[in-house]
Amino acid sequence: MENTKKIREGSVRTASRLIRNIEDRHPEARAAIKKIFPHTGGAHIIGITGSAGAGKSTLVDGLISAFRKKNQTVGVLAIDPTSPFSGGALLGDRIRMQKHAEDQGVFVRSLATRGAMGGLSKAAGDAIHILDAMGKDIILVETVGTGQQEVDIMHNSHTVIVVLVPGMGDEIQAIKAGIMEIADIFVVNKADHAGTAQLIRELKNMLDMAHIPDDGWRPPVLTVGSAFETASFVENLNILSEKIADHHQYLIHFNELKNRLRRKTRVEIRDALRSCILDPVLADLDARGELDRLTELLINKESDPYTAAEEIASRYLRKIPIKQTKKGGIVR
Amino acid sequence: MENTKKIREGSVRTASRLIRNIEDRHPEARAAIKKIFPHTGGAHIIGITGSAGAGKSTLVDGLISAFRKKNQTVGVLAIDPTSPFSGGALLGDRIRMQKHAEDQGVFVRSLATRGAMGGLSKAAGDAIHILDAMGKDIILVETVGTGQQEVDIMHNSHTVIVVLVPGMGDEIQAIKAGIMEIADIFVVNKADHAGTAQLIRELKNMLDMAHIPDDGWRPPVLTVGSAFETASFVENLNILSEKIADHHQYLIHFNELKNRLRRKTRVEIRDALRSCILDPVLADLDARGELDRLTELLINKESDPYTAAEEIASRYLRKIPIKQTKKGGIVR
Repeated sequence: MENTKKIREGSVRTASRLIRNIEDRHPEARAAIKKIFPHTGGAHIIGITGSAGAGKSTLVDGLISAFRKKNQTVGVLAIDPTSPFSGGALLGDRIRMQKHAEDQGVFVRSLATRGAMGGLSKAAGDAIHILDAMGKDIILVETVGTGQQEVDIMHNSHTVIVVLVPGMGDEIQAIKAGIMEIADIFVVNKADHAGTAQLIRELKNMLDMAHIPDDGWRPPVLTVGSAFETASFVENLNILSEKIADHHQYLIHFNELKNRLRRKTRVEIRDALRSCILDPVLADLDARGELDRLTELLINKESDPYTAAEEIASRYLRKIPIKQTKKGGIVR
Repeated sequence: MENTKKIREGSVRTASRLIRNIEDRHPEARAAIKKIFPHTGGAHIIGITGSAGAGKSTLVDGLISAFRKKNQTVGVLAIDPTSPFSGGALLGDRIRMQKHAEDQGVFVRSLATRGAMGGLSKAAGDAIHILDAMGKDIILVETVGTGQQEVDIMHNSHTVIVVLVPGMGDEIQAIKAGIMEIADIFVVNKADHAGTAQLIRELKNMLDMAHIPDDGWRPPVLTVGSAFETASFVENLNILSEKIADHHQYLIHFNELKNRLRRKTRVEIRDALRSCILDPVLADLDARGELDRLTELLINKESDPYTAAEEIASRYLRKIPIKQTKKGGIVR
């Protein structure tokens, strides 16, 4: 309870310790989240994503300044996967963001977790709760990368900003497929580079084809130059922060906030179920040495993965009474 | 059984249909894999990864030609996530690879699956089994992206090639962290671009610091120019295919192949357990409308994700007897 109180009073030390516990998958983390959860829900959570080198960190830095000018408190969670291939680039960011280090209204943390399916999305969700319970008005969640993992993390937020840079030919083609589903605002960064006009045209064409209803939200396409801290950069960031506020208003006004909350909550339930159902089974199998034995069995082709998994499921799961009576639910 | 026979005879039509079933998560797919599994294990599975625009497709194309010259049959699985942000770039590749379309010894398929945690890694593992059972000597598994998902997919292979291009400043920094764990061969692509010498130097420094034992495998760093189908390109690809063969020999000679197999099998077991334990629980909760009710409960802060998930776990899971007697295992 002590922790919860300290978090609610904005203790940077307690928050940092809890986030470390989340990274380490320390059992205390789960207990803390349980207690903190009722005190969450106040922040506007903004996800920022795009591939490495798109200039997200400069953008985040500029956004912090823009929100602070409006006297809003800001929490930043930089997701920093330690797995091969990813993250890393965030290192520079944190150094840059030190200019906000003296500001009590800004709390910046990176979050790193190792391997394990879906671990990062769950850890991000938990860490966001901590920043939320601290009473931050705005939470910026930054990810580097372009996979399903990043999409999952983005589902933790209310407003999703996708950052693009001109001249990444493959990139826009790659992004076209499903980006409409999750982008609320597009930012074309380094817009002083060649290819900006074409990228904007492509984005707008794509949005035109999406047939967004008149009262729906059409993701605006904003541009930001790479000349950090110039007057035009600051001005562009102000415009971006206004668009973010507009989107928040839209969500509230059209009752869309609840839909986002549902999306976010569903991701959280799934993640929690994995750690409460699948992880203990795996841990138990491992403790009994069965994972090793099973591995040898499969290598020798004496079984196959599905037959083995079905057998394990029948041992660990009670009979699943699909579509039976609805008694005994979670809601009493 | 019919399917298994056809697959083993190399039927392109049956293989394509099964891969489509895997994509669609058709229940037939699981039954097919169970039957096919005993007939797998003959192929040398080679994973190729790197970020978008690194020129993996040209490389794959060149590798197909190099292996065909040695009379080896080749299966190619291009992983093409339909999720936002990813894949896409593979479209061009498939068109390019059509020059192998007439060649009976080459089978190229892309694999796309939607969303759902870990779905892609499992689907890739299953599709690889199909190509394996078809009797392909070499299976090339190509992924675009740099996340945990790609690492998981790479764990399905025996030899991992990481493709880099010079001049992606962020990239090398980002990759440094954990790449040593999974890269067996580095290819510096578009090596006629600026920054090649520096990139190679950085890679070699990194390998020097890894203290690889004298009888261990030191990942070679190869360069390939971007001038497709020139004599030097063909020559470089021959060298690469030789290095791949060397790595295979190394794996066999030092009994490392079994370690790779174990790694691959462990991923497969985990994926199969998810689909046999977690998915049915989620499906049952959904069928009962409990996921919706639970979502509302959490939104209203009447519960928290972990308390809810623990309650669900206690309903669906039998008591987990951690470290109890070892009777009742899978191996009898």
